[in-house]
Amino acid sequence: MEIVFATQNRGKFKEAKEKLERIGIKLLHYDKGYPEIQADNLVDVAIYGARYLSRKIDKPFFLEDAGLFIRSLNGFPGVYSAYVFKKIGCRGILRLMEAEEDRYAEFRSVIVYKEKGKKAKVFIGTCQGMISHEERGTKGFGFDPIFIPSGSDKTFGEMDVREKNRYSHRGKSIEMLAKYLRKKL
Amino acid sequence: MEIVFATQNRGKFKEAKEKLERIGIKLLHYDKGYPEIQADNLVDVAIYGARYLSRKIDKPFFLEDAGLFIRSLNGFPGVYSAYVFKKIGCRGILRLMEAEEDRYAEFRSVIVYKEKGKKAKVFIGTCQGMISHEERGTKGFGFDPIFIPSGSDKTFGEMDVREKNRYSHRGKSIEMLAKYLRKKL
Repeated sequence: MEIVFATQNRGKFKEAKEKLERIGIKLLHYDKGYPEIQADNLVDVAIYGARYLSRKIDKPFFLEDAGLFIRSLNGFPGVYSAYVFKKIGCRGILRLMEAEEDRYAEFRSVIVYKEKGKKAKVFIGTCQGMISHEERGTKGFGFDPIFIPSGSDKTFGEMDVREKNRYSHRGKSIEMLAKYLRKKL
Repeated sequence: MEIVFATQNRGKFKEAKEKLERIGIKLLHYDKGYPEIQADNLVDVAIYGARYLSRKIDKPFFLEDAGLFIRSLNGFPGVYSAYVFKKIGCRGILRLMEAEEDRYAEFRSVIVYKEKGKKAKVFIGTCQGMISHEERGTKGFGFDPIFIPSGSDKTFGEMDVREKNRYSHRGKSIEMLAKYLRKKL
């Protein structure tokens, strides 16, 4: 079975490819992008993107969108995590959190999978944790150095890929997609 | 001449209506919304919206998008100003700015005007100023209480509509549109 992953992030593609090849799926790469709308939840953004892509891609395909949702900041930076990271970085988030005792946060990853003529399937992977008091580690990307997943005392920035994948939101959503596809094979 | 303003903000509609009626234009209201893409500049967002609307609206129409761009925060909150305001408010911006000596910021308003079969016209109004050290005033909306336009010592939050319009980015972009339309009448 051949499936297309629409992403402009090479790292995400490799991660998914490795997981899906294990169950006999050949993963193809679509890297031309798609419009991401402004919405305040990831599912709407991903569904809109999938609708656009269903006119461009003939094979079954999926796309993924992720964000960091901090409880004491009303879910900020949320759907705009990549943009916020680029503008104010981990340092900006730490400043916003200086006075906050509630440091709960979660990473969410949404995958929308679409086959021609069928309704889109949505898979949501979540990783609960907390915002650290300082940046730690240089691995991963984005807000990884300030996020400590529940059950660990390391930040994502201090974990290698294999360890991070055990906890990670994206690891989980891809796992859910893989389970779904395995049933169809 | 009849023109449609596509906006879901009643305040913006009234403001524009009043200005454009003075030059003999009847302003109609389209309030069904349009997709706003994630991009890091207002023009791309507005152009994309206009492309969508050109399939929905037959008459000449325009839309407007605005944002606050803070220099020391790399242009944050920028195109996502409305979202950021909802999540972290003026208080969040003041926290991010605590250690910043450079308090320069500007409000920008982009109008895209479109007539059938013609290229879109873009008008950009800017208002330069600085971020105050505390919230002042309760007028206006969004980040108005922390923005002091150059040439004043009041924040937008301390000004009534008429005074604010003398300085404001949106006042300027609508003025530019009005000038353009006056030539056509």
